[in-house]
Order: sequence, then C-alpha cells, then structure tokens
Amino acid sequence: MGKIKEFVEYLHENEIKKAVILKKENINYFLERYPPNFSVLVFEGEEGILYVPKLDYEMAKKYERNNLRVEIFDKWENIFEGCDGVEETLPIKFLKYLSKDYKIISEKIKEMRVIKNKSEIKLIKKAVEISDKAVEYVTENLENMNKTENELSAEIEYVMKRNGSIRPSFDTIVISDKKTSYPHELPSNKIIKNILLIDIGAVYGGYCSDITRTFLLNPSKKMEEVYDIVFNAKKEAEKYLKEGISAKELDKIAREFMGEYKEYFIHSLGHGVGVEVHETPALSIKAEEDIVLKEGMVLTIEPGIYLKDEFGVRIEDLYLVKKKGFERLSNAKYW
Amino acid sequence: MGKIKEFVEYLHENEIKKAVILKKENINYFLERYPPNFSVLVFEGEEGILYVPKLDYEMAKKYERNNLRVEIFDKWENIFEGCDGVEETLPIKFLKYLSKDYKIISEKIKEMRVIKNKSEIKLIKKAVEISDKAVEYVTENLENMNKTENELSAEIEYVMKRNGSIRPSFDTIVISDKKTSYPHELPSNKIIKNILLIDIGAVYGGYCSDITRTFLLNPSKKMEEVYDIVFNAKKEAEKYLKEGISAKELDKIAREFMGEYKEYFIHSLGHGVGVEVHETPALSIKAEEDIVLKEGMVLTIEPGIYLKDEFGVRIEDLYLVKKKGFERLSNAKYW
Repeated sequence: MGKIKEFVEYLHENEIKKAVILKKENINYFLERYPPNFSVLVFEGEEGILYVPKLDYEMAKKYERNNLRVEIFDKWENIFEGCDGVEETLPIKFLKYLSKDYKIISEKIKEMRVIKNKSEIKLIKKAVEISDKAVEYVTENLENMNKTENELSAEIEYVMKRNGSIRPSFDTIVISDKKTSYPHELPSNKIIKNILLIDIGAVYGGYCSDITRTFLLNPSKKMEEVYDIVFNAKKEAEKYLKEGISAKELDKIAREFMGEYKEYFIHSLGHGVGVEVHETPALSIKAEEDIVLKEGMVLTIEPGIYLKDEFGVRIEDLYLVKKKGFERLSNAKYW
Repeated sequence: MGKIKEFVEYLHENEIKKAVILKKENINYFLERYPPNFSVLVFEGEEGILYVPKLDYEMAKKYERNNLRVEIFDKWENIFEGCDGVEETLPIKFLKYLSKDYKIISEKIKEMRVIKNKSEIKLIKKAVEISDKAVEYVTENLENMNKTENELSAEIEYVMKRNGSIRPSFDTIVISDKKTSYPHELPSNKIIKNILLIDIGAVYGGYCSDITRTFLLNPSKKMEEVYDIVFNAKKEAEKYLKEGISAKELDKIAREFMGEYKEYFIHSLGHGVGVEVHETPALSIKAEEDIVLKEGMVLTIEPGIYLKDEFGVRIEDLYLVKKKGFERLSNAKYW
C-alpha cells in the first residue's frame, strides 16, 4: 500500500479531518523526493495537497500523482482552517490557528518511517554508494595527505557532489591528530598528521548516508590497540544484529566488549538513518524508550574511543536489519 | 553592550526568570560562533548556559567566557524547570514542561538580530568573500562550460569549502537553458548551454552569504533584453536603498521598473541575511508587516524574470544598509 493511502486511512480511523505537515523531512518521506525548501503538505479527504510558493509551483507540478495535488501557498489561516492533526514539532506560534482538540500525528509517521520500503532502500543505497566513493578517494590518496583538514574536506565533498549528492547529510568531519579526541570537531587549516578521522554522509533524493573511517597515518602502539578494540566492538555488535534484539541490548554488548576502555566510549552505539541522518531507533543505553529491532530498519553502528589530549578512533557502518541478520550497506575499505 | 548582557536586561525588565533557546541560529547569534549540532542555550540570572551532549563538552568548553558557561545536557525536565520564556518556534511537544503563563521572547531576538554589529558584519563579509571567489571561478571559466550542472555545482562548492565555508548557506543552484525559468531548480546531469544561472552562498562562523549571477552563453535578443531589464531594476532599487525607505516601497520600485515584464517577476525583491540566509526584513509587497530599513541591516536585492518554457534571469547582490545609502558587500563581476 502506498504511503499516502496508509496515512489517509490512519487519519480516517482516528477521526482526523485535516492534517498539516510542516517538517521538511516528513514531506520528503511522503513525496519520496526532495521537496522545495518552503513546502507544506496537507492531508484532507483521500489525498495529499502540497503547497509551495508561486515561484516553485511550475517545478513542483511535476510531483503530482494519483493522490497528490500541488497548489500555491496563500495564507497560514487557510492552511490551518479546520486542521485537527499536527506534528509534535509544530512551532507554538501556529497554536493560535488550532482549536483545542487537535491530535498529534507524529507517532504514526515515526512508525511508518522507521521501516524502509524498497524504493527508500534504493535511495539510501545510492547515497551510500556516493559516500563510499568519497572514502575510496581518501584511501587511494593516503600516501598523499600533506594537506589541511579543510582541503581534504573540500575534496571529499567535491567527490560526493560530483556523484549526485544534493549536499552533505551533516557538516563533514575531517579531523586529525589530537582533534580526533573531540568526536564532532570541524575541519580547520591544520595539516593532517598522525591520525585521520573522517565522518561523512551524502543525500540522494532526500535520503541520507553516514560513514566513519579512522586512518592511522603514523600509528603508536596505543593507537593500534585502541583501533583494534573499536573495530572488534563493531564486529561484536554485528554478531547480534538482527530482528528481535533491542537497541539498548546492542549498545550494551558493544560497550561491555570494550572492557576498561568503555568509559571513553562517550556516545551511543548508533542511530537510525533515513530522510534524517539521525532518526529512530536510537541505539543508546540512555534512550528514553527501548526499541526492538525489526526487518527494514536502517541504522548505523559506530563505536568510538576518545582519549583526551591524545587521540580518538571511531568506525561506523550503515546496516539494513534483516530477519536473520543484516545487510551491510556501506562497503568502503577500512584502514 | 554585549548581546548576552542586553538580552539578560530585557529578561529582567519583562520579569522572565528563565529563557530557553533551542533554535540553532539563535544560539549561533548569541555565541557569535557556530554551535555544536545539538545545543540548548538557557538564560538564567545574569548569564547564559550552553548545554551540549557529553561527547561535545570538551569542544564546547572553549566557548566559555565572562557571562557564558558550558554544561552537559541531561534531561529536558531540568532544562525547562522554571522556564517562563520560549521562542515562537518551540516545538509543541515541549509545552508539557511549561506552566501556562510563559512569554514569547522571539520579538526581542528578531529586533536584535536584524541590526548587525561590527563582528557580525566581519563574518558576513568573510562569507561574501568566499562566494565571490566561487563566482570568479565561474567567470574565469565561461569559455569552458562544456560540463554538467552537477559538475559545475561540485566545483563551486569545492572552491567555497576550500576557502573555509562550513557548508553552502542553501542548496546550491546551478541551472541552465530552459531550467532557468524555474527559480529554484536543482542541478542535474544536463550539459550547460545557452544560459547559466548560479545562485550560491557560503557559511562562515555561522553567518551566510547569498549571490546570484546569470550568464548568457549563447544570447538571443530577447535574453539580452530581459537581462538588461533585470540588471537595471536592481540599479533602480539601489538608487533608493538607504535608511528610511520601507521594504515594500523598495520592492514596488523595482517591480514597477520592469513595466510589462513585472508579471514574470514571481518572487519578492529580497530578504535579510545573517545567521539565516532568509531572515527579517522581507523585501516583499506581500509581506505581513512592512519594515522601515535601518543602518546595519544586511539584505539581498535580487530581481528576476522567468519566462515559462524559455528561460529565466536573476541577478542578486548583498547590501549593508547605511544612513545615506548602502555598502554593496558582494563584488563578483557580472556577465
């Protein structure tokens, strides 16, 4: 069943007459293509109506199909008139347009989004292929790293854009030396040396990829030891990755595997990936709710160890959960 | 007076005890540097407290200063405890943490953000310098445009990234031929021909630039005619651009200048630029409120004419409004 049809049925069952979707990623999800920057998706009756500014109308008309019409955006008053279903992310400034008995429709959308259908998996695989190419570019040029983090970062994004990525799925991380001990540092004009961590992603048709590789350029014994622990923690998690295991359990398995290093694993094991690069399920022992993994979920596994004032190592792949195991989507070589 | 001090005084005057800022661009504004992806800024007493995840704590500690502390994010309950000031963009899912008498603090932040201070102008100028370099790259290679839109787009983003842009300030527009008649089309694998429109921007320290150039590669008479009208409409607007004119008036001046072509000018004349690439003031005859321009505002002027199934022309520059005129910030050559 199509997404729009499924969602419309849900609205009928819950007696919601008109639902308004503002979150760009949710609109992307229902359209299965990248929406214009300003877009509003309204569900009423049996169909979805995409509202866009006049200047994007001709472009967006191409998105029309069976149960999806395109209209020119006019006024918020008109969009919200009679609306009784909204997202939990709705900005409070729109509350004035709503009657008091509105319902939140986000749980249903989350539930739909967490299991990827065939065409979504195709788009994710395309995004993965693009980021794999960028990693390949780096591994092929490892002998030639006498450049700045900014330079390599520009080259990586060039390779991804050149291969059809709309934009990086998040701010590209290319860091080296002691900076690797900060998981989310941004590239700078420092020359790459000793150790190189790249955490990158592409966007294709609105769908994201996410991959991390760490390269030991001038490895100390400790670096090699830490690298092995991180690499094998990922392998350990893979052993248990299949439908039925819980997200928290999987995080715990990788964490415990690290032994005395586990206190330096300062983030969660992974996260879902789709139209957002971070989405449900969170593979985190600290998550508010635990989620049992199911076939069709797409998620990262990315253990990391960060030693302050020394260095950090993170290795990340993207996986499609299967009934009896998984398909690893990212295929770029490791160090 | 510093931004944090000014805002804290506003909170005191309005008897707001604790304000929570979630919007990344607003946090960027108060920090005057690019914040970690997940950040929450809380104002309480005389200071701001930046909450970040544990994994970004060491990195963010470097942001601490006189009236700004950094803490590790724990729970939303704790963030919102006692909070009585929120942004109008607050997602409704957080309403459950608020008492009923909260106040909206967005107007004050908008009022502060619309007038840029010296250090903000410096960052914007740096972003402009970067996008100017990318335009320069295109003008220097106009003889050599036998490539796809995606290729040129990748090259443009490479030049920007290489020069220190964190990311494009919006999805880079590089379109050619008939596609130029859609103002916001994205690049594809089509070979560039006849007419080339690039609309690009960089981000530096969180601050944006935005520039558009149209190049007639194989001009028809009509293309040249339309190009001249657009170019001169921008010039006409410049004649009136200074403190005291209203945003709507300025849009009307450029629009009327276009004569019979004005019906093909299907968007507004421009918009403010800062930590967001589209912010107050909207230079639009259709805007909900009219705004009188003031010294220190930074905005685009970008007339365009779009002829369906034929071609489109848009030319855009970035300006700093002055008491008696303006400073044009973008300096890239025109076609």
